[in-house]
Amino acid sequence: MEDSGCRNTVLDIDLSSFGILEGISETIVSTGFEFPNAAPIGIIRKSGRPFVRLFKGSHTWANVSKEKYLAANVVYDPLLLVRSTFFDLAISEFEFVPAGGRSFPVLKEASAWVVFKCVNIKNTDQALVAELVPVEAGFNEANMKFLPVPNRGFNAVLEATVHATRYQLSRDEKYLEWILHYEELASKCGGEKEKQAMELLYKVLGL
Amino acid sequence: MEDSGCRNTVLDIDLSSFGILEGISETIVSTGFEFPNAAPIGIIRKSGRPFVRLFKGSHTWANVSKEKYLAANVVYDPLLLVRSTFFDLAISEFEFVPAGGRSFPVLKEASAWVVFKCVNIKNTDQALVAELVPVEAGFNEANMKFLPVPNRGFNAVLEATVHATRYQLSRDEKYLEWILHYEELASKCGGEKEKQAMELLYKVLGL
Repeated sequence: MEDSGCRNTVLDIDLSSFGILEGISETIVSTGFEFPNAAPIGIIRKSGRPFVRLFKGSHTWANVSKEKYLAANVVYDPLLLVRSTFFDLAISEFEFVPAGGRSFPVLKEASAWVVFKCVNIKNTDQALVAELVPVEAGFNEANMKFLPVPNRGFNAVLEATVHATRYQLSRDEKYLEWILHYEELASKCGGEKEKQAMELLYKVLGL
Repeated sequence: MEDSGCRNTVLDIDLSSFGILEGISETIVSTGFEFPNAAPIGIIRKSGRPFVRLFKGSHTWANVSKEKYLAANVVYDPLLLVRSTFFDLAISEFEFVPAGGRSFPVLKEASAWVVFKCVNIKNTDQALVAELVPVEAGFNEANMKFLPVPNRGFNAVLEATVHATRYQLSRDEKYLEWILHYEELASKCGGEKEKQAMELLYKVLGL
């Protein structure tokens, strides 16, 4: 097992220092002791308490339903964001950290990660809602060489990805208009990775 | 003069480590040895070379035209973003660092700042374009306690601010539709600061 920087016990984990603040933090969630999987998912924090909403049918939902653990990975790579939305990542993209007495997958590319135990799980028709208790967390200093400065191109990839998943579900053309807008923004304000990410997104949608 | 963390000589400044990468980095630019001013401005980097485009008539444009220096401040506070777009900041919000043999204003709230000398300045009818040579840079560790995780609410404030300045110039109602959209997003995904920032933006626009 590889070492992933500092480890903390439950009592030490200050979610804010990992950037999980009030509102919705856009992370890539990894799950699956048995079958590692990753997908972009927002960690919601309201009045200090973190929770998550997972739509039924996804790998993330299946893994959390069964195993009750997930990790929030802080990632600034727009291409990884798009890849993890539409494709399975390679097993080599995960590293394993101790959680729940076993080895849990987090992303090697993450600047930081927090493993949560999912408690008070409630199922609705469409989704699972779970409260989150942090059990392990770490920083990957090697991935923190660049300060993440706000970039409208990166943000545009994030928005386009959200609209792309909605388009795939609904086929509503209004989402394509949003995506076109964000493609222009990613092209104007982003770097190489933002452009690659939008190219991949266009490919996935057959545009 | 206050100390602002690590200082580097020209040769040491790696712009990438300050997050100024290819594309457009959204920073708050401070200017004015004599009359400190701050406003959100993108630092553009193409094929590695940093430059900036400043629209004529702004305080930033006037200061750079006269003094040939600017500082890019990396800031994650959405309220400061909106405040510096529409209002003058208080002098107490600046600290002073050595640049060009004098004391140059940077933002106390910045996680990092880079002071640039502006060279090869070209003036067009509407704007000034300058190449940027980094001369001083620093991190403010005290402002780096929270990892800046992508947040669609923060991003929405940034987009709304861009559209608000365009609306002020053109009074084109299409920008109000964008702003309404981003207000919803800031409210749904942001924290308290994002909500305050949008409230202020609405107040400025008389909405």
